Amino acid sequence: MASCILLLAFLLLTDSQTSRLSSKNPKDVKADDFFFSGLDTPGDTANKVGSNVTLVNVEKIAGLNTLGISLARIDFTPYGLNPPHIHPRATEILTVLEGSLYVGFVTSNPDNRLFAKVINEGDVFVFPQGLIHFQFNYGTKNAVAIAAMGSQNPGVITVANAVFGSKPPISRDVLAKAFQADKKTIDWLQA
Amino acid sequence: MASCILLLAFLLLTDSQTSRLSSKNPKDVKADDFFFSGLDTPGDTANKVGSNVTLVNVEKIAGLNTLGISLARIDFTPYGLNPPHIHPRATEILTVLEGSLYVGFVTSNPDNRLFAKVINEGDVFVFPQGLIHFQFNYGTKNAVAIAAMGSQNPGVITVANAVFGSKPPISRDVLAKAFQADKKTIDWLQA
Amino acid sequence: MASCILLLAFLLLTDSQTSRLSSKNPKDVKADDFFFSGLDTPGDTANKVGSNVTLVNVEKIAGLNTLGISLARIDFTPYGLNPPHIHPRATEILTVLEGSLYVGFVTSNPDNRLFAKVINEGDVFVFPQGLIHFQFNYGTKNAVAIAAMGSQNPGVITVANAVFGSKPPISRDVLAKAFQADKKTIDWLQA
Amino acid sequence: MASCILLLAFLLLTDSQTSRLSSKNPKDVKADDFFFSGLDTPGDTANKVGSNVTLVNVEKIAGLNTLGISLARIDFTPYGLNPPHIHPRATEILTVLEGSLYVGFVTSNPDNRLFAKVINEGDVFVFPQGLIHFQFNYGTKNAVAIAAMGSQNPGVITVANAVFGSKPPISRDVLAKAFQADKKTIDWLQA
Amino acid sequence: MASCILLLAFLLLTDSQTSRLSSKNPKDVKADDFFFSGLDTPGDTANKVGSNVTLVNVEKIAGLNTLGISLARIDFTPYGLNPPHIHPRATEILTVLEGSLYVGFVTSNPDNRLFAKVINEGDVFVFPQGLIHFQFNYGTKNAVAIAAMGSQNPGVITVANAVFGSKPPISRDVLAKAFQADKKTIDWLQA
Amino acid sequence: MASCILLLAFLLLTDSQTSRLSSKNPKDVKADDFFFSGLDTPGDTANKVGSNVTLVNVEKIAGLNTLGISLARIDFTPYGLNPPHIHPRATEILTVLEGSLYVGFVTSNPDNRLFAKVINEGDVFVFPQGLIHFQFNYGTKNAVAIAAMGSQNPGVITVANAVFGSKPPISRDVLAKAFQADKKTIDWLQA
Repeated sequence: MASCILLLAFLLLTDSQTSRLSSKNPKDVKADDFFFSGLDTPGDTANKVGSNVTLVNVEKIAGLNTLGISLARIDFTPYGLNPPHIHPRATEILTVLEGSLYVGFVTSNPDNRLFAKVINEGDVFVFPQGLIHFQFNYGTKNAVAIAAMGSQNPGVITVANAVFGSKPPISRDVLAKAFQADKKTIDWLQA
Repeated sequence: MASCILLLAFLLLTDSQTSRLSSKNPKDVKADDFFFSGLDTPGDTANKVGSNVTLVNVEKIAGLNTLGISLARIDFTPYGLNPPHIHPRATEILTVLEGSLYVGFVTSNPDNRLFAKVINEGDVFVFPQGLIHFQFNYGTKNAVAIAAMGSQNPGVITVANAVFGSKPPISRDVLAKAFQADKKTIDWLQA
Repeated sequence: MASCILLLAFLLLTDSQTSRLSSKNPKDVKADDFFFSGLDTPGDTANKVGSNVTLVNVEKIAGLNTLGISLARIDFTPYGLNPPHIHPRATEILTVLEGSLYVGFVTSNPDNRLFAKVINEGDVFVFPQGLIHFQFNYGTKNAVAIAAMGSQNPGVITVANAVFGSKPPISRDVLAKAFQADKKTIDWLQA
Repeated sequence: MASCILLLAFLLLTDSQTSRLSSKNPKDVKADDFFFSGLDTPGDTANKVGSNVTLVNVEKIAGLNTLGISLARIDFTPYGLNPPHIHPRATEILTVLEGSLYVGFVTSNPDNRLFAKVINEGDVFVFPQGLIHFQFNYGTKNAVAIAAMGSQNPGVITVANAVFGSKPPISRDVLAKAFQADKKTIDWLQA
Repeated sequence: MASCILLLAFLLLTDSQTSRLSSKNPKDVKADDFFFSGLDTPGDTANKVGSNVTLVNVEKIAGLNTLGISLARIDFTPYGLNPPHIHPRATEILTVLEGSLYVGFVTSNPDNRLFAKVINEGDVFVFPQGLIHFQFNYGTKNAVAIAAMGSQNPGVITVANAVFGSKPPISRDVLAKAFQADKKTIDWLQA
Repeated sequence: MASCILLLAFLLLTDSQTSRLSSKNPKDVKADDFFFSGLDTPGDTANKVGSNVTLVNVEKIAGLNTLGISLARIDFTPYGLNPPHIHPRATEILTVLEGSLYVGFVTSNPDNRLFAKVINEGDVFVFPQGLIHFQFNYGTKNAVAIAAMGSQNPGVITVANAVFGSKPPISRDVLAKAFQADKKTIDWLQA
């Protein structure tokens, strides 16, 4: 297998091709290893937040391995929200295909400044790596966006889920103090 | 100015924020520094190859500085071609919004394998960094694609232009030998 | 100034020495440019969360520029909390000098697993880059920890502050939907 | 094998020693793993372009793994050409040992500027990463150069071969349009 | 195993999780994989130099893999010395917990400037990557420091050991010339 | 000047072109900015160690800026030595043009293994980043080598000079203990 790794590195692109493709004989690599189908299909937005992300990362296109980029389609119902979240390993650049979105990110301490804007079809917005950001469909029609991220596996941390929905839960004491809230509110948010 | 550089690095994201934004007082940074408008407008394809690339890189969005990503819209007339080219500093991931494209890339020596495929609306294809690739609209309708690249300034080398259209021209002797062609053919290609 | 940049790069260490030190004549660089004093002094924990972080980053030691590391002292009163936060640009490794801490981090979607543990004097724990983490002093005595981060400017996003305390505030609609809470709860958390 | 990987990383140099050497017990690593013999031997230039590259990369010296550099000897007959090519992953720095060379590279769009020069024994020239470049022996004697590249596996894309000699071939329609040539010329260049 | 590698990358943090943890089913990863115990225990300083380094790197905490940081405790007897050494892959930032240390580093050619200083409890000092540095306890009490390094496996080259104590030894001729010393002195230093 | 920086980045190659060239109007960049002359001239070896390094780094070729590579010619008299040294920022790959060299490097703690070999014309040897290494001309004729390093500014730390010849000197106490030598020997080595 070691020679496969090396051969593939020659056939293709990078110095450190390490997982998926590398377990394949380079002669067997084909165009489909660089291909994914389905971004024209709206994601299922029948959920509590009214949005859906279809992420095309190295899990979906093995040929992305070591190449440091991925793509996503985001669908929004009216009032649908891609809730405040973080990509721990990637900056995101997004363009609106349909509808309007209120988008924003918040900078780090001590300022916690919100940079936000309503963007429309054909507009582009950037969310720097590791910062909390969101997209909200204020409109009365569906909205669709395409986003690219600078990692083959950017990761997504939805703040509300990670903080109030982790398994096992973070202790009530911690959350009550962090959010300066009483424990009933925390219990309720965790539920 | 040195203190501006530093302050901005705190306000925003990166360790090495060096040009555009860094010459700005961080208090003056605003949402529009992360924004671009116009990707819904088709590019002008009235040219010899019948295609047009609208590139949104750090020139267009100053806030992309040091963030390592950019976005583009590519328009094609029927039989329009985004001719064989290279991004010296970026992998590209592309999705088709309208129409069909015959796309491909060629691997390096000694194999020079062509990985090519016809892709349709909603399909995604990856072009690894530094490899020669192209997109061709075989269809009878316009085609539109969105592409993301893993650099704030990916660079574009259109092979035909760089080889046969450089200023000043590469010597005829070099090109005739490289392409194993007579000098008249080279003269003609250079013209 | 260009020649200063270059000279300093020769005198010291890195290829891309760009801000603070670089505006200094390399002959004027001295040991104090690599020095900071005061980590033996407890930080002021008389605040709502009962903790304080004294961060020694490139703002405090100009010589850290381009070197990708920083250090911090964290003080905790009894029941003091370093609330859930993120370093967008750094992994953290922490050791306890005095007392006991309940520490943890939460992984990204879809699992949101909490990895948590009570750690004592001399114990070491790692918080991977970009993940939400916290440290809580369950004990009845003060606690002290030393933490190192893999960036000269790691950044800190305190989740509660960024989400509920940004300036200007994130819209109530967004937060109510994100946390599946009624707007009164959101108003209350924002206050 | 996992423990071998780790031990080797300690014995030697890098954080991510992943292939060749890593499958070896570190106790068995020896000086010959960092050694190659034969750069004093002229390469075989009896070919259509009259040049030959002897590349010493990680394939030839397993110990180069993860170290990001390689070396080559290039031989030229009189009028020999190292035809226009690209290293997708490396900048090249070259020095002439014998003879004279006309060398150059072409910048990216929109300028496509040719930076070219005749260089002689002891001269050094730089070809930036991913740009099309060439070396041509105008002289009537053999020429020899040593080149270093900033990757353990820089890759080589010979433009003429990749464009007109890929397997399978790129469609005639694409090439005719790209080079603004009639299909007969393309057929002829592909042959 | 390939799928384990990939799954773990999703569960946790990085694009290139390659060794230790990657051979583990991600479901089996637990908090202890990010934990080490024992930095409160003084290292054994009963040796010729009167110092001891307890290094917590990826060997001790498997979860540090790919995360680029490590931590150490350094103990010194009175007049104990952490002798001149180099970390080939890491910058170091150090703080004194007890006692006083005379610390310094030497810059590269041609200046070989010594940047040195006596530092006390709570002081912090930085040693840039790859430069020769040392810490010496001038005092009459024990001293203790905590140091962080910007690599999960920084490596340590103790100059005296590497130069005069390598196995097999470097030839006497080389060392005599390098240190402009007679061979008897070299023999004596090697012994 | 900010716009110059940006324009140059487009004209040439990289995302972070920061010093020399960047202070130049891109229209004024010319082939000579990528050129150096003189590696065919032997360096002056009339010194105590009988060797000379002619280094072609970013100081000599401004166009190397951000490109991460440099080249050197090393001349040796009979019994000439390039004494034990370190490149803190670069791996080195070397080939012998004339003569024979005894070359080697020493690994880090705890093994301090010497990997050494006599190499001849046309042989290639690799010295991994940050490790102590040397080249010695055992022969009775001059020797010449070409070496490439993976940094535009690799840095050189000659161990004997940095340890025994720093300005100001490292304290005798430190060196005596480090080398387990009496202070007279240290005084003598420092002189």
